[in-house]
Amino acid sequence: MELLKEVLERIKPSEEERALVNAVTQEILKIAEEEIGKKDLEVTPRLVGSIAKDTYLSGDHDVDLFLAFPLEVPLEELRKIGLELGKAIGKRLESYEIAYAEHPYVRAFYKGFDVDIVPCYNVKSWREVKTAVDRSLLHTEWVVKHLDGRNDEVRLLKKFLKGINAYGSEVYVRGFSGYLTELLIIKYGSFMNLLENVEFLGKGKIIDLEGWLKKEPEIAYKTVEREGESPLIVIDPVDPRRNVASSLSWEKFGVFYFKAKEFVEKPGIGFFFPSKAKAGDYKALLKKKGTNLVTLLFPKPELVDDVLLPQLERSAKGFEKSLKREGFEVFDLNWGYTEKAFIMLEVDRVERPRVILKPGPEFLGERALDFYTKNQKVWIRGKRLYSEKEVKEGIVDVIEDLLTKNQVALGKNLREVIKNAEILINFVPPELEEEAYLFLSKEKWNIKG
Amino acid sequence: MELLKEVLERIKPSEEERALVNAVTQEILKIAEEEIGKKDLEVTPRLVGSIAKDTYLSGDHDVDLFLAFPLEVPLEELRKIGLELGKAIGKRLESYEIAYAEHPYVRAFYKGFDVDIVPCYNVKSWREVKTAVDRSLLHTEWVVKHLDGRNDEVRLLKKFLKGINAYGSEVYVRGFSGYLTELLIIKYGSFMNLLENVEFLGKGKIIDLEGWLKKEPEIAYKTVEREGESPLIVIDPVDPRRNVASSLSWEKFGVFYFKAKEFVEKPGIGFFFPSKAKAGDYKALLKKKGTNLVTLLFPKPELVDDVLLPQLERSAKGFEKSLKREGFEVFDLNWGYTEKAFIMLEVDRVERPRVILKPGPEFLGERALDFYTKNQKVWIRGKRLYSEKEVKEGIVDVIEDLLTKNQVALGKNLREVIKNAEILINFVPPELEEEAYLFLSKEKWNIKG
Repeated sequence: MELLKEVLERIKPSEEERALVNAVTQEILKIAEEEIGKKDLEVTPRLVGSIAKDTYLSGDHDVDLFLAFPLEVPLEELRKIGLELGKAIGKRLESYEIAYAEHPYVRAFYKGFDVDIVPCYNVKSWREVKTAVDRSLLHTEWVVKHLDGRNDEVRLLKKFLKGINAYGSEVYVRGFSGYLTELLIIKYGSFMNLLENVEFLGKGKIIDLEGWLKKEPEIAYKTVEREGESPLIVIDPVDPRRNVASSLSWEKFGVFYFKAKEFVEKPGIGFFFPSKAKAGDYKALLKKKGTNLVTLLFPKPELVDDVLLPQLERSAKGFEKSLKREGFEVFDLNWGYTEKAFIMLEVDRVERPRVILKPGPEFLGERALDFYTKNQKVWIRGKRLYSEKEVKEGIVDVIEDLLTKNQVALGKNLREVIKNAEILINFVPPELEEEAYLFLSKEKWNIKG
Repeated sequence: MELLKEVLERIKPSEEERALVNAVTQEILKIAEEEIGKKDLEVTPRLVGSIAKDTYLSGDHDVDLFLAFPLEVPLEELRKIGLELGKAIGKRLESYEIAYAEHPYVRAFYKGFDVDIVPCYNVKSWREVKTAVDRSLLHTEWVVKHLDGRNDEVRLLKKFLKGINAYGSEVYVRGFSGYLTELLIIKYGSFMNLLENVEFLGKGKIIDLEGWLKKEPEIAYKTVEREGESPLIVIDPVDPRRNVASSLSWEKFGVFYFKAKEFVEKPGIGFFFPSKAKAGDYKALLKKKGTNLVTLLFPKPELVDDVLLPQLERSAKGFEKSLKREGFEVFDLNWGYTEKAFIMLEVDRVERPRVILKPGPEFLGERALDFYTKNQKVWIRGKRLYSEKEVKEGIVDVIEDLLTKNQVALGKNLREVIKNAEILINFVPPELEEEAYLFLSKEKWNIKG
């Protein structure tokens, strides 16, 4: 298809770019070998990830350098020596810092490249895997062995997924990982064939490229059973215990599903290179919709996205639940950060009646007599007593009251900042105006172009 | 108790009143006997009801004259001859009209008394009962035989129940009938003893003055089982198939229960002679409460209260249900009539957002693709598709729309009039101002004095 060629011209790295990537990675590998030699360690430096697999997009190339230790090395030692070695390599690059995942590793910068230097075990099979990152070695090997020249098909799929905002396996994205993308191409042969078979993909649901369901049925079926709620179950070719698509959400799979159908029907460059959604006047939109926007604004805590974003989500959902209980309807939620962190709630109204119905116990009995005694007005419907109670009226008062009484489920690192949040009604600071518009217009979620 | 004496002085008929009642009833009886003689019928005129039992309150004395036919007379004949005889008697009184219950009867007026002239069978036991009114003869006989001079205790209880608005077994009251009042006094011996034992009454629940549970266990237990949801089961001393309290609602029993407790603790003349609830400014009240009043006003159909009021209730509840489904909160309901019939709804608001969330199907599949195609904006939460839909905003539009689409459950004789009802928001005509205040202030239901 002419269109796909055009896309490839823009996303496939040029010969110059490839030469640069190769040169820099070789340099880094050499530095690593030298440092290993200096320390006289039995460690193998290994390139993994999209550079190693040659599936990276033009301009998008982080170097993943793994330091593979023999299996006999105790974990404590691997961590300690791995970090020291990483630092020694980092020192010879332009700059570096320590980052934390399952164990600490070094993030360096060199000649325009981000370089992750990660210690791991030099595993040969899934049975040897000890830490979460070990599997990366096996993934890289497996993909290199099976991709069979379809690297550009992977690139098309990656770019397509990025264009429809469904790429990345981070907890705050829950889309398609790079490895999953590669496996889907290996399974379906090409980008277009995958898209044309998306209905089949969704209904078939299980992909088992290495035949684990036959070779290791007990383990593989356990994986299938455990992952029953996932939209896809792609049994990892290098490890039958794992579903490669386990972090893929129904939302992101759904976006891919509908967009694939649309693309097959009516292909367009816009799927790969979407034009930025046009923002408008959020205040006019609020007026038109007749809804209200409540924004909580608070200092962004020093947390990585993997931690911060899920906690913001949890907090936003906490507000939704608590406000519903208080008689407000919450139509939609949004969260994120610019300079400050924010939670946005689209609600039906910002005031509610001062007096609400207060159901009491059924009579006869002590509890009923107690309710009868304690309330000024009491009446009966069926067997139940009722009274009225006065409640706070404005949503700001209600939110502050809920926060004071700890009646909102909040992300644990956000409790204090949210308690002191500014609460804005139908107004946001200039830096959030576009965000507010995209949220209220549903353009933020709208999957129709 | 001094207080009870004081009450009795006001509610017990004086000697002059008794003499008048006796004279008039004897006159009527004599007229009836003459007319029976003229027609040469084998019919016995019988006085029943509170005059016959001497449990009537001062100034409150309708004459219940029953015309008791032999059991052999076929029902058709009883109806025909009974009505003719009634008319003949009615003609000799001041005025009369035909009224309808299970069968037609004559309502006459004579010397300041309402006189019901009702044909029935001259039954001697429950096994002979053929029409609903036959039992009245047995009731009167049983009470006269067992009341044993406690007539004034019955008067106190009747007046107490009237004062707390719990007297009368009509479907739109569902309170204590006169007969039930008499049985409760026969069971508990005195007004005060009944009130002091109201907890026991409620928990004991079953009263069986004639020992039917032993004498006719099969029939009596069936009655108990059938009436399990009633607050009281008083097996009719003259008919084990019947619960005398079957029309008593939990609401009215509850009012009696709490008021009895209050009276025992702190007696007062106000229980018997309540001061009229003071009305106030319903508009100021609406403002204070922050709620809204929706009133539907329509011509009162020509229906008796027994039919009209339950249908108004059903219609009011229909609006409650439908408006809740449309996103309005309905706090309370009221209905009734003055010149026109009305339904009042106290609601949280009279406008709602123009745009509401529209949940679609789950994907995959045809229905999801269809929803995706048909809606302008679509997004996914979990496996489900969502869109927005525009809805009518003002509650008047919503109500009119619901009525047009037949989406409100209405009383069957009210459908047409309600469809053409005036809908008033936060405003009522002058004749309903007091009603609106009592409704909104809950003084209409408030059982606390």
